[in-house]
Amino acid sequence: MDAEIIAVGSELLTPQRLDTNSLFLTDKLNALGIEVRFKTVVGDDRERLASVLRAALGRSGLIVLTGGLGPTEDDVNRDVVAEVLARPLREVPEIRQQLEKRFARVGRTMSANNLRQALVPEGADWLENKNGTAPGLWIEQGETLIVLLPGPPWELEAMFESACLPRLAQRATGGRIVTRVLKVVGLPESEVDRRIAPIYREYRNPATTILATLGSIEIHLRARAASDAEAEALLAPLADKIEVALGDNIYSTKGESLEEIVGMFLMMKQKTMAAAESCTGGLLAERLTRTPGSSNYFLGGAICYSNELKTKLAGVPEVLIKENGAVSKPVAQAMAEGIRRRSGASIGIGVTGIAGPGGGSAEKPVGLVFIALADEHGTQVREFRFPGNRERVRLWASTAALEMIRRRVRD
Amino acid sequence: MDAEIIAVGSELLTPQRLDTNSLFLTDKLNALGIEVRFKTVVGDDRERLASVLRAALGRSGLIVLTGGLGPTEDDVNRDVVAEVLARPLREVPEIRQQLEKRFARVGRTMSANNLRQALVPEGADWLENKNGTAPGLWIEQGETLIVLLPGPPWELEAMFESACLPRLAQRATGGRIVTRVLKVVGLPESEVDRRIAPIYREYRNPATTILATLGSIEIHLRARAASDAEAEALLAPLADKIEVALGDNIYSTKGESLEEIVGMFLMMKQKTMAAAESCTGGLLAERLTRTPGSSNYFLGGAICYSNELKTKLAGVPEVLIKENGAVSKPVAQAMAEGIRRRSGASIGIGVTGIAGPGGGSAEKPVGLVFIALADEHGTQVREFRFPGNRERVRLWASTAALEMIRRRVRD
Repeated sequence: MDAEIIAVGSELLTPQRLDTNSLFLTDKLNALGIEVRFKTVVGDDRERLASVLRAALGRSGLIVLTGGLGPTEDDVNRDVVAEVLARPLREVPEIRQQLEKRFARVGRTMSANNLRQALVPEGADWLENKNGTAPGLWIEQGETLIVLLPGPPWELEAMFESACLPRLAQRATGGRIVTRVLKVVGLPESEVDRRIAPIYREYRNPATTILATLGSIEIHLRARAASDAEAEALLAPLADKIEVALGDNIYSTKGESLEEIVGMFLMMKQKTMAAAESCTGGLLAERLTRTPGSSNYFLGGAICYSNELKTKLAGVPEVLIKENGAVSKPVAQAMAEGIRRRSGASIGIGVTGIAGPGGGSAEKPVGLVFIALADEHGTQVREFRFPGNRERVRLWASTAALEMIRRRVRD
Repeated sequence: MDAEIIAVGSELLTPQRLDTNSLFLTDKLNALGIEVRFKTVVGDDRERLASVLRAALGRSGLIVLTGGLGPTEDDVNRDVVAEVLARPLREVPEIRQQLEKRFARVGRTMSANNLRQALVPEGADWLENKNGTAPGLWIEQGETLIVLLPGPPWELEAMFESACLPRLAQRATGGRIVTRVLKVVGLPESEVDRRIAPIYREYRNPATTILATLGSIEIHLRARAASDAEAEALLAPLADKIEVALGDNIYSTKGESLEEIVGMFLMMKQKTMAAAESCTGGLLAERLTRTPGSSNYFLGGAICYSNELKTKLAGVPEVLIKENGAVSKPVAQAMAEGIRRRSGASIGIGVTGIAGPGGGSAEKPVGLVFIALADEHGTQVREFRFPGNRERVRLWASTAALEMIRRRVRD
């Protein structure tokens, strides 16, 4: 059974919005072995939606429509589906009662428009919406299954998980698709591909995709088999070979972020850390503290944008800044050692650099960043030249700092 | 002339990837008065792409295909378009020479596959690719215009701007669409809608969309007219009424972020600031330092995750933490006053709270945040209860702090 997703809503055809529900749906459908072959976005327009739906009926075993189930005139999905399938709409008393109760509970009166949500095409099942007013619809039309879901993600996701997944699992006979994600740090995308292309090209199943996001590279391996266990068995040899080829540049195989991995290592080794940041402006600390429980290993830090604060908060001697400039190896080192001393952390990090777009020179160009790591064994300082704009330089610098911590704590 | 966009690529049908090129294209097409009526994503599959293309030919004046122009067997756009339009492919010597030169320049030999990129359907124009090897295609088929663009955004965007926009501008006779964005802070989405729905409902043109992103609400007004000036004239009265209804909760009408606006106010009033953050973990500083030149007004700050660092970096008396707890009004105040004193900034900010998911209690639940602002007039402390998860609490807290600065500096 192949699926297609039709997202309905004129706002999804503006330059500001994307249909992101289809990512959730694709993920869940793939796990059941169902491939998504088409995704269409169409506005709240009867005629256009009808033409898209007719095309879908001719080619897909499962059609999921999202959005367009609200109470307003703009919400045409229910009507169009009823018309195209030639199934008249009938009011379902149970839905009407639920709607009335819901409105009574919040002390509002229900408008006549809301009653549209109690209409169901003849012979269709309706799906309860625990997080909103619009029920979903489940329609079997010959060999084709048509599912209508509400647009708001929290409504759609809850309804799909509770009402659709169990029923789909029974019908899906195409096996299972299992995905494994290997996350890589410290190598450019081209180098990752150079090393692993000869390996993954040998395999059609699993299929391999390399995704470069800002600051990290992900390798997605996707295997299809009769069961999860068989799919895992297909994944294992390819994953193993890739892990050998990339070695310890792979930091995660279970979806963890780099900051989570660093946190896990710090916890395991019972270490704490603190950071003094200049050009990253708090981004390193912000990333580390995204993880719940990070207060167990992250004590805090100083953001020393001004030279004066480099001295006052991180204890960098004024003369060092005067002699070497704020963006220099000695200052990075002094920041790391200073914040370590002040905070009492096992590890101190110092980051100073030029994020741009201004402030660069021939000698010290935009993208130049020094990162220092101080611990009981001494202080290591590395010099980086990151390409790209301010946002990229800051992100790469924070990633490089996390990677230095990961390697130091692990070893 | 209505447009539709067909994004081709099997990776766009996985749970990890979205077609984002269509946002860029929609924005540019809208400005020319061209509406996008359908967006389709289809895999690298000859038969499926052909069926999508045939449907498009029957309904759209402009069809933009993206992706699928590479040198590999997977890239089928060129072939499928030639076949569906019944225009045989012919090699264009000029493209071949450009390809050969390009490969010679980087010292690589060109594979036979690459020659596929020199093939052009009979009667079609080709579009130079300044950032890659795959040329685009421009095909006039009766009243319909079909444009093929490469998938990588930097190739697509450069090609569209230089080769497509000027030609499209000549053909587009549907007038212009101009969008104005009003950004709102300090009000929930429901309250924004309650206040302005009676206003914008009076207008069909401009059309109004309310977008709630994390931490900010945007009101998009979109007017269509014969010229930009006429569209602006349509926008002005509606924008004015909305600005009256929302007053100073509107912080930006020209696209600036809240942190940019705060920076502009600080520069204008020649003020500086510093921040001591606990639960936001550096996010406030990180947001402020995203703006180039922020070192002119942002001196730095302390991230005091541990109580000890609240004392050491922000000068919070130990006894204050012992008596009131780290998440309390007096500690927020002491953080703001302490970091102001240490940094010598005109304004000091203190943020302490419980971001969750752990650490909450009946008395001090997850989402409780105290934010203090200290300046020469004294210290203001506000208590907030933010809903949602860790990420949302941190984001709302940093937004609330920025909003406190905006109001204080402006007045």
